[in-house]
Amino acid sequence: MKEIVYNYRVEFGDCDPARIVWFPNFFRWIDAASRHFFVECGVPRWEETEKTLGIIGTPVVDTHAKFVKTATYGDTLQFHVSIPEWRGKSFVQRYRVMRGEDLIMECDEVRIFAARREDNPEQIRAVVAPDSIRKLCE
Amino acid sequence: MKEIVYNYRVEFGDCDPARIVWFPNFFRWIDAASRHFFVECGVPRWEETEKTLGIIGTPVVDTHAKFVKTATYGDTLQFHVSIPEWRGKSFVQRYRVMRGEDLIMECDEVRIFAARREDNPEQIRAVVAPDSIRKLCE
Amino acid sequence: MKEIVYNYRVEFGDCDPARIVWFPNFFRWIDAASRHFFVECGVPRWEETEKTLGIIGTPVVDTHAKFVKTATYGDTLQFHVSIPEWRGKSFVQRYRVMRGEDLIMECDEVRIFAARREDNPEQIRAVVAPDSIRKLCE
Amino acid sequence: MKEIVYNYRVEFGDCDPARIVWFPNFFRWIDAASRHFFVECGVPRWEETEKTLGIIGTPVVDTHAKFVKTATYGDTLQFHVSIPEWRGKSFVQRYRVMRGEDLIMECDEVRIFAARREDNPEQIRAVVAPDSIRKLCE
Repeated sequence: MKEIVYNYRVEFGDCDPARIVWFPNFFRWIDAASRHFFVECGVPRWEETEKTLGIIGTPVVDTHAKFVKTATYGDTLQFHVSIPEWRGKSFVQRYRVMRGEDLIMECDEVRIFAARREDNPEQIRAVVAPDSIRKLCE
Repeated sequence: MKEIVYNYRVEFGDCDPARIVWFPNFFRWIDAASRHFFVECGVPRWEETEKTLGIIGTPVVDTHAKFVKTATYGDTLQFHVSIPEWRGKSFVQRYRVMRGEDLIMECDEVRIFAARREDNPEQIRAVVAPDSIRKLCE
Repeated sequence: MKEIVYNYRVEFGDCDPARIVWFPNFFRWIDAASRHFFVECGVPRWEETEKTLGIIGTPVVDTHAKFVKTATYGDTLQFHVSIPEWRGKSFVQRYRVMRGEDLIMECDEVRIFAARREDNPEQIRAVVAPDSIRKLCE
Repeated sequence: MKEIVYNYRVEFGDCDPARIVWFPNFFRWIDAASRHFFVECGVPRWEETEKTLGIIGTPVVDTHAKFVKTATYGDTLQFHVSIPEWRGKSFVQRYRVMRGEDLIMECDEVRIFAARREDNPEQIRAVVAPDSIRKLCE
């Protein structure tokens, strides 16, 4: 199973008046880490896959996160990303966020491969993971 | 059980190139809705409770969200917030996010009442919910 | 000259470890206030104007902001928005941000009406403000 | 004059429905680049300078930005940061944001070194740049 690491240094503005990371920011970085995983695996950007495969992205349909230790600005975090499970039209993407030896947070997401609905392009629908993408990520 | 509604109108910049809300933004609004709940229940701002009760906020230790329908800019969302469960040093805060009749997403968080650690004020520890706060929120 | 007011209540997560609004957030709200101005003037959403007029939005090409007083969470801010100047392919959008009687910040932007370039739809070009839009905003 | 480069890769969620960077995000990265400049020059984090020098940060009092070319996700941007001018209680911090050879945006800020006001620690006041910090940054 492939594991890709995305690094992020926490900035002053990422922290709140309690001087710790404001938790919604973790999801910003998780989404960047998710994309980073696909980039590192060789998946083209969504704009291209929209043209070739109809795939416009991998929106999250379910996310479950545990916050174990706090982090603050100046910290460098390592997001360890993998896809431990492929389902029919969805997959689990997993993140373990470390600061060196310390576990900061962990998160399991269910994401889908999304295409535009033919009857209404503003709406999306889940499609089976294209083999070409899945092979790159396993 | 008290239920408070927080309203938010989705803005252009809240949406991503797929023209739907970029999901980390939901957690921005959920945190605002959480705070709004306490404000509406009459709980003072954390800066004051830090002085009177030692409480610096209610950080999230666990969050589980399901994204049911997409939203886009121009939509007005209603965040229905409640605290369905009080535990020893933590509590469950629940959000049902509606766009009129449509359920957009729902989220259950476990939060704690946090105080600074005496041996290291940069670290936080969970404390039992003060009665004065709990009574305001039930 | 039309003036529209956009209200925003500053949230905990909008503030940084110095316990004041992290300044990039002002630009989030200014962009929302800019959009709010057009909405209140009756201009349709950009998705519709893209179809009818080719206009995909009003990106900022120049912005100049002065930060006069700090704001913190719990504050309600009033963004007073107007368009004091129309130029050929651009216009000045002005914001005076008040907290009651206190001036918090002010900002003058130059924005354009943007259309996609025909030779490369990923690039944008400035177009003359459509009369139909300009009349709604004056 | 010292020049420090801060690198940032634009993420999917940094872009808006027009598929270009949502401009307030540039100010997020500029603030990170500002901080990065001080870190690279050897200035301690604000938490430490608050204890040793009373300095809690360098808030922006004036910013003027020009957006020259658009950027989108996948782009790597180089923020070239310098301090071209020291004034009594303020200084100019300059950013030239490049994507390789292309100028994307440029920004001149006036920032101050801020200390808490003695009569009201929630308010800040400008202080003369400490020699120890200035020497590190020239």
